[in-house]
Amino acid sequence: MKLLEEKIKADGKIYEGDILKVDSFVNHRIDVGLMNELGKEFYRRFASDGVNKILTIEASGIGIACLAAQYFGAPVVFAKKSRTSNLAPDVYTAKVVSYTHGNTNNILVSKDYLTASDRVLIIDDFLATGEALFGLADLVAQAGATLVGAGILIEKAYQAGGKRAREQGIRVESLARIASMNPTDGITFIEE
Amino acid sequence: MKLLEEKIKADGKIYEGDILKVDSFVNHRIDVGLMNELGKEFYRRFASDGVNKILTIEASGIGIACLAAQYFGAPVVFAKKSRTSNLAPDVYTAKVVSYTHGNTNNILVSKDYLTASDRVLIIDDFLATGEALFGLADLVAQAGATLVGAGILIEKAYQAGGKRAREQGIRVESLARIASMNPTDGITFIEE
Repeated sequence: MKLLEEKIKADGKIYEGDILKVDSFVNHRIDVGLMNELGKEFYRRFASDGVNKILTIEASGIGIACLAAQYFGAPVVFAKKSRTSNLAPDVYTAKVVSYTHGNTNNILVSKDYLTASDRVLIIDDFLATGEALFGLADLVAQAGATLVGAGILIEKAYQAGGKRAREQGIRVESLARIASMNPTDGITFIEE
Repeated sequence: MKLLEEKIKADGKIYEGDILKVDSFVNHRIDVGLMNELGKEFYRRFASDGVNKILTIEASGIGIACLAAQYFGAPVVFAKKSRTSNLAPDVYTAKVVSYTHGNTNNILVSKDYLTASDRVLIIDDFLATGEALFGLADLVAQAGATLVGAGILIEKAYQAGGKRAREQGIRVESLARIASMNPTDGITFIEE
């Protein structure tokens, strides 16, 4: 999607170590107008799939998930990263390694909020190794719900996650697919 | 606001230890339609105040902040709870005690995303002791920005935070103000 690709080119920052920072519009400051347009695009792609629940993971997925969810008329459920004293004991859990943060989280969703009748669209900001996506898909499977697909803002297409997910039959729609990037040569996208 | 009070009465769960769980529509499953109406209400109350930035704190504030921000035409900045390897070193920080989670977080906002020209509306889901609110207000003050006020979904008005904030001159608009609650007698609200 050109709108997002142009924004990444203009405001994304590339660092050594395969780091793309989009803090200025995605995951620290949120460009709500832009996210709304991206939300509409997810709706355009999944409008006929009977989505009745948007699933994401805290924290940076929540904003885009809520803005997109408006168009689906669906609620958002966000997986939590650690058990809190406020949460019911009856949960689905999966393990997710974060390469960005260098740790492993237990993600969890209350069994009350993900059920066998759900048709779930996963929405998240990044897809690289796919750890978060596979963790969320695991929660959907545990609930016996139907995974309609995954709407991703930015896919590092040169990493294994997207390919692996598609091979497993997960429909992945990424609004910007990065073919390559580095601080010297900048960033190139896979043409849609 | 009656809409929110009725929802809390219908779907909120009160437990011993002064716990009100609104996981089914605020902070695990997000009722996006309801949050949109609450966002509009925040806009109605702060429409003439020149708000150009919405400030919240991860994770459960992000959804309502993004939905409200649409009406203001403003971006959202969410304070992060711990330093990540993805974040610039140049940040404003404050300490926030969480009584819910029984820990203390360092919250932080990049200096790039909060500046002296900003007119900031803080949005958050709960106000009780006020720890999060005072931490966020501290970040606003450090930036030399103007704090327009705070839009809160649910205020435990029998706790000290709201009173203390208003005494300090912070304009606090809470959409539901709880006068008292306990598992036996249920919940009562302060009439608007």
